[in-house]
Amino acid sequence: MAIILARRMADLRASDIREILKLTQRPEVISFAGGLPAAEVFPVEAMIDLTANVLRREGHRSLQYSTTEGHPPLRRAIARRMNATTGTRVDEDEILITSGSQQGLDLSAKVFLDEGDVVLCESPTYLGAINAFRAYRPRFVEVPTDDEGMNIEALERLVAHHERVKMVYVIPNFQNPTGRTWSLRRRRGLIEVASRWQLPVIEDNPYGEVRFAGEAVLPLKALDGAHLVVHLGTFSKTLAPGLRIGWVAAQPSLLHKYVLAKQGADLHTSTLAQMQIAEYIEEGMLDRNLPLIRELYRERRDAMIAALAEHLPAGASHTRPDGGLFLWVTLPPELDAREVLKDCIAEDVAFVPGGSFFPNGGHENTLRLNFSAMPVERITEGVKRLCAVLSRHLEGSQARASCV
Amino acid sequence: MAIILARRMADLRASDIREILKLTQRPEVISFAGGLPAAEVFPVEAMIDLTANVLRREGHRSLQYSTTEGHPPLRRAIARRMNATTGTRVDEDEILITSGSQQGLDLSAKVFLDEGDVVLCESPTYLGAINAFRAYRPRFVEVPTDDEGMNIEALERLVAHHERVKMVYVIPNFQNPTGRTWSLRRRRGLIEVASRWQLPVIEDNPYGEVRFAGEAVLPLKALDGAHLVVHLGTFSKTLAPGLRIGWVAAQPSLLHKYVLAKQGADLHTSTLAQMQIAEYIEEGMLDRNLPLIRELYRERRDAMIAALAEHLPAGASHTRPDGGLFLWVTLPPELDAREVLKDCIAEDVAFVPGGSFFPNGGHENTLRLNFSAMPVERITEGVKRLCAVLSRHLEGSQARASCV
Repeated sequence: MAIILARRMADLRASDIREILKLTQRPEVISFAGGLPAAEVFPVEAMIDLTANVLRREGHRSLQYSTTEGHPPLRRAIARRMNATTGTRVDEDEILITSGSQQGLDLSAKVFLDEGDVVLCESPTYLGAINAFRAYRPRFVEVPTDDEGMNIEALERLVAHHERVKMVYVIPNFQNPTGRTWSLRRRRGLIEVASRWQLPVIEDNPYGEVRFAGEAVLPLKALDGAHLVVHLGTFSKTLAPGLRIGWVAAQPSLLHKYVLAKQGADLHTSTLAQMQIAEYIEEGMLDRNLPLIRELYRERRDAMIAALAEHLPAGASHTRPDGGLFLWVTLPPELDAREVLKDCIAEDVAFVPGGSFFPNGGHENTLRLNFSAMPVERITEGVKRLCAVLSRHLEGSQARASCV
Repeated sequence: MAIILARRMADLRASDIREILKLTQRPEVISFAGGLPAAEVFPVEAMIDLTANVLRREGHRSLQYSTTEGHPPLRRAIARRMNATTGTRVDEDEILITSGSQQGLDLSAKVFLDEGDVVLCESPTYLGAINAFRAYRPRFVEVPTDDEGMNIEALERLVAHHERVKMVYVIPNFQNPTGRTWSLRRRRGLIEVASRWQLPVIEDNPYGEVRFAGEAVLPLKALDGAHLVVHLGTFSKTLAPGLRIGWVAAQPSLLHKYVLAKQGADLHTSTLAQMQIAEYIEEGMLDRNLPLIRELYRERRDAMIAALAEHLPAGASHTRPDGGLFLWVTLPPELDAREVLKDCIAEDVAFVPGGSFFPNGGHENTLRLNFSAMPVERITEGVKRLCAVLSRHLEGSQARASCV
């Protein structure tokens, strides 16, 4: 006789990324595997002063329990900022503060998913969302996705074909893992399908403010005439992830369900951290720091693309993101990125094999590269090493092919 | 056609406590309804200095992503402290840092409960646990409970009688809502039953360190030869709740399941907040502040008990807690605390009707009083007003009875 766990626990596994990261924590490893924002632009000194200001001004309130919905000045600042920078029309009462946008994913699953329900998602999609949703035992149906976003005809077909489709999950800006951005046409197409079928759409937008090239595209939330979009935001990439502050923006009756779910999950998010971030925004520091982040990320993406142009063997291709933290490489179909990774680790370079980002498996000839966390010289050197391993694998597979 | 939510959402309701609190936020109301710690003893000034120290010393690391398990120095400090003050033998690897101990409740349900599984709990039990567990759609079976804790014979009978009993949830020290503390004999009895049936025991211990009278009793975790106890701790009552830092202590293979569940739920808890608390403990500030908290709470409990001795009408009784934040009043069975509350609010005094703390309903002749959040004079005045309303209700019910 032993303890009996919930059935869902059989589906939860340690994430590939985290296991790989453990192997690559030696300082000599050039790791493109993580999803870390550049720490150099974290406002450490500013945090010292603003924390002192908040504690002096707010006193005991900053350390006391507060409401599940969140600190009113932060909800207000987020609504204003979204409306001013992205074209939405969100009221402060439509904002719930969460413990990172990861919690927004968990709450979305809690609010919408019974066991066996269908989640439609991009193919590939964010590994952290797969893990969050899996605890609620849904079926994942991957919608074919290209450089413009989901194929809308395929989406419509899949919605019609599957019973119990409960929500659509997408990352329209600089997607994790591909770095792709949806066109406006596809965004409108998704909203049209969602409206016809009354399907909630979870718009995960951690990277939208980290655009360093091209023109911004309206978020789904700004196109949301039918009030079906649940927009997830975060300060992890625009300020710092260690504070774990994100938000959910949704129409009031739906937001109330998220509030009830969050009340049971952790009562509320840190009062002090919410006040720190409200202060950071109100003092104009977010707006002053964002250009530095964008410029740094652009340089690093440029360095990665330049190195790939020089070294990536023929037959492999990659995306060219206009923002965010990631770039996606597709290898010839005969290569297995997990095998490539093993040899790369021997050469002190690491990445995440792309197969992890497909909830139903396959696509082992893909990989994700992070360009935000490393200085330019390390990026150049790392890509060179990675591509040398790739070339060896390609030659090997061609030699094997010619023996047949 | 409308959005279809998960079935669990039909079971989640706004908590009584929170709805009542909204009615009683006028400053003239003397509210015994909340569960707020005394804000006067929050270390606001100390937080300013230690935050600056942490940010200067740890730099970018304090704002970066960190591991799901938690900040190693904090895990170490918690394990050491538990072992030194409560007699456990917990290793730092057996500690997971959570976003308040409320998250420990949510994760416990996620790890153990499928729909329809049975949770055994005290009768009454903590409302926040009922809400957290309800999202996983279990059946609650209440175990008869008296001043010494659960009736162990009844517990054994209920375990044998019900199929799919998956966990036992208890608050052995200064229980919320009753303020009762389990005897050592009952604790041993629970561990014996749990071992025989291989049942996980969730030991929720938010108040253990806030003992202001009597002798400490060994926690279940210290009696846990069979490694079945999941111990939940928090800094909400010993430092400040607004930081939302708690922990789970469990044997390694079980803790790993909690880690996986937390990874999906919110990745990890605030890096900066974990460092702040580690610093607070390491600098000896927790140990210096605790006696002030205990002394203040003892004074307030004394004031409440003195006022009840003077004013509580015959036929009503109350508990005499040796620690924690709450005291429990039982009225004659013909009175309904919800009706009493309505009249109390008109007199600017508030409490939580006890019925909310029984997951299967009933017991409307009980109520919970918080004594931690209010100065002595307000406690005295509030109890006087409350008891005047109670006396009116009692006279009314006696008059009605004599008319029959």
